[in-house]
Amino acid sequence: MNDTDYMNLALELARRGMGWTSPNPMVGAVLVKDGAIIGQGWHTRYGELHAEREALKACTQSPAGATLYVTLEPCCHQGRQPPCTQAILDAGIARVVVGSDDPNPLVAGKGLNILREHGIEVVTGVCKEACDALNQVFFHFITTRRPYVVLKYAMTMDGKIATRTGASQWITGEAARRRVHEDRHRCRAIMAGVGTVLADDPLLTCRMEGGRNPIRVICDTQLRTPMDSQIVRTAKEVPTILATACPDETRRAAYESAGCRVWVLPEKNGYVDLAALMDRLGAESIDSVLLEGGGTLNWSALEQGLVQKVQAYIAPKLFGGGAAKSPVEGLGVETPAQAVHLKNTTITPLGEDFLLEGEVEYHVYRNR
Amino acid sequence: MNDTDYMNLALELARRGMGWTSPNPMVGAVLVKDGAIIGQGWHTRYGELHAEREALKACTQSPAGATLYVTLEPCCHQGRQPPCTQAILDAGIARVVVGSDDPNPLVAGKGLNILREHGIEVVTGVCKEACDALNQVFFHFITTRRPYVVLKYAMTMDGKIATRTGASQWITGEAARRRVHEDRHRCRAIMAGVGTVLADDPLLTCRMEGGRNPIRVICDTQLRTPMDSQIVRTAKEVPTILATACPDETRRAAYESAGCRVWVLPEKNGYVDLAALMDRLGAESIDSVLLEGGGTLNWSALEQGLVQKVQAYIAPKLFGGGAAKSPVEGLGVETPAQAVHLKNTTITPLGEDFLLEGEVEYHVYRNR
Repeated sequence: MNDTDYMNLALELARRGMGWTSPNPMVGAVLVKDGAIIGQGWHTRYGELHAEREALKACTQSPAGATLYVTLEPCCHQGRQPPCTQAILDAGIARVVVGSDDPNPLVAGKGLNILREHGIEVVTGVCKEACDALNQVFFHFITTRRPYVVLKYAMTMDGKIATRTGASQWITGEAARRRVHEDRHRCRAIMAGVGTVLADDPLLTCRMEGGRNPIRVICDTQLRTPMDSQIVRTAKEVPTILATACPDETRRAAYESAGCRVWVLPEKNGYVDLAALMDRLGAESIDSVLLEGGGTLNWSALEQGLVQKVQAYIAPKLFGGGAAKSPVEGLGVETPAQAVHLKNTTITPLGEDFLLEGEVEYHVYRNR
Repeated sequence: MNDTDYMNLALELARRGMGWTSPNPMVGAVLVKDGAIIGQGWHTRYGELHAEREALKACTQSPAGATLYVTLEPCCHQGRQPPCTQAILDAGIARVVVGSDDPNPLVAGKGLNILREHGIEVVTGVCKEACDALNQVFFHFITTRRPYVVLKYAMTMDGKIATRTGASQWITGEAARRRVHEDRHRCRAIMAGVGTVLADDPLLTCRMEGGRNPIRVICDTQLRTPMDSQIVRTAKEVPTILATACPDETRRAAYESAGCRVWVLPEKNGYVDLAALMDRLGAESIDSVLLEGGGTLNWSALEQGLVQKVQAYIAPKLFGGGAAKSPVEGLGVETPAQAVHLKNTTITPLGEDFLLEGEVEYHVYRNR
């Protein structure tokens, strides 16, 4: 096995923390001595040991003189955990092989310099692309302090998210719907508009075995969420935030005694200011949002440059209907050249459906 | 090389006739004697020799005792060409290997029985699936006497075929647009609604090098196509049919003197009766139609069960816009279970775009 092989193993380990490390990154580490793996570990969950320390703890023999493979540059600052660079020095590691750089420009390279100053051989950028891809959410959050927003919708092959009567259950098949619940587990919050609550009365929970419920965020400018909706009735079990521009204290108190948090935010164009909402979510360490909105909310988020990724589940069927709803509505662009472009697209067959994903190209988008 | 290898060669030859054999099928033939290919040919164009005779004509030595590989059951009836079965007997062929059966139930197997009666060894069903797939259009046409209709549209990832202002040039990139022109070459006719003519003033020709222009069919219930539209101005060079429910002789005469044919058809729900139009196209030996309609025409055709295949070109971009047009409009279905389902879907990356194709499942659809 060579450096790449060991780093791929570290990546596999890192992925085991998926959905649990937020707002920390997923990190994996492997210790190798004389061609044998003597320890491995990953960051299992926020608040627990960092991957490097997990690997050291799991060592079957002395790590002195070993090589450490770690998917992300080791930290050198005191946080919830003591700096990993110190643990590496204490353990007598001879060589450190790193995937991603630390995304914080104030920190990047500092930890590695400390190691080099102590005579440790440092190699960087091994499987960098894969390591960076794993922590897209973390990198975005740590640099912008706003959540990484994934706009998700399920539509027919003719671009409908419901029939003309508003019926939408179901557009996609089981495999696609299972995949959505995996993403609900991975994202720290799920966001929908009050229109969706009024139309579908959804639960917005994660129905994946062993999965974690995302925090539910309802954009409800006028506070119209029904007190007997599933969202409000389950707000004591599943964290729920109503984001509103309505300052009415009495109505707010009713939701709060039902278990909801109510955030009163500025209004923008007759709608809760989504940028302010993202700032507030970021301030609460919510690093990722799965946006399952209707066409109006989806367009508002896109139009304000708040969406990082788009996931379109496409079912091989047609609804037709000039009055049927489409995934992104609002005003929309005027000319094709003004379109919101996506890059790094991938297509994944899921049962009979397809998942088309891509990242929003901000530099194109913002120059509109 | 075995039977499958030779049949695959015959299939490759058959494909060379693509776009030229209509309303005949594409057929390829290979003659093998003592392990060597001694002749090969394909049906090059409507009115020319059948593949079997082309292969015999190209023989480098006597075909007596040879094996004939042919992608479609040889014909046994006198048409524009004498029956191929006779040519096979005359040539002293010892063994005939066939891909597809003759799709005409009145003829299927008859030719092969004649060959067997004369002591020729006959093997059927070799590469049957690929041979059948090659001539989907022919099989549909010969059994229904209506054209095989391919509904084609280009849309954004949020299901828009134009921005809110109606602008649609361009949604997809060059690779996708090149592919559309290949399909225009393959299809005998191209169909659009007068709304598209009024909005975009398109030419609807095939801009592929060496390609053939499809016959242009405009669904124009009220005869609103402008006399100075590109369609009418080029009607003397490119065959053009206006399908209308308007019986006005004077207006009709104006179009006719510009080179258009005007078909007056029954009206159905305020629209040219599309089933009657398909019958008439079939009667004129037009075996295939590329439907590039707007949302209203597309829905009418789907709703009446006249579409065999759907091609959605999907661009990785978003237009948004509640008022932006979508590919299939009209009334649409009421519940998701009533959706028009597609089977045998495939996805093809074309530059940065994707082509999602599928065949309309009629038995599901008709039971709505």
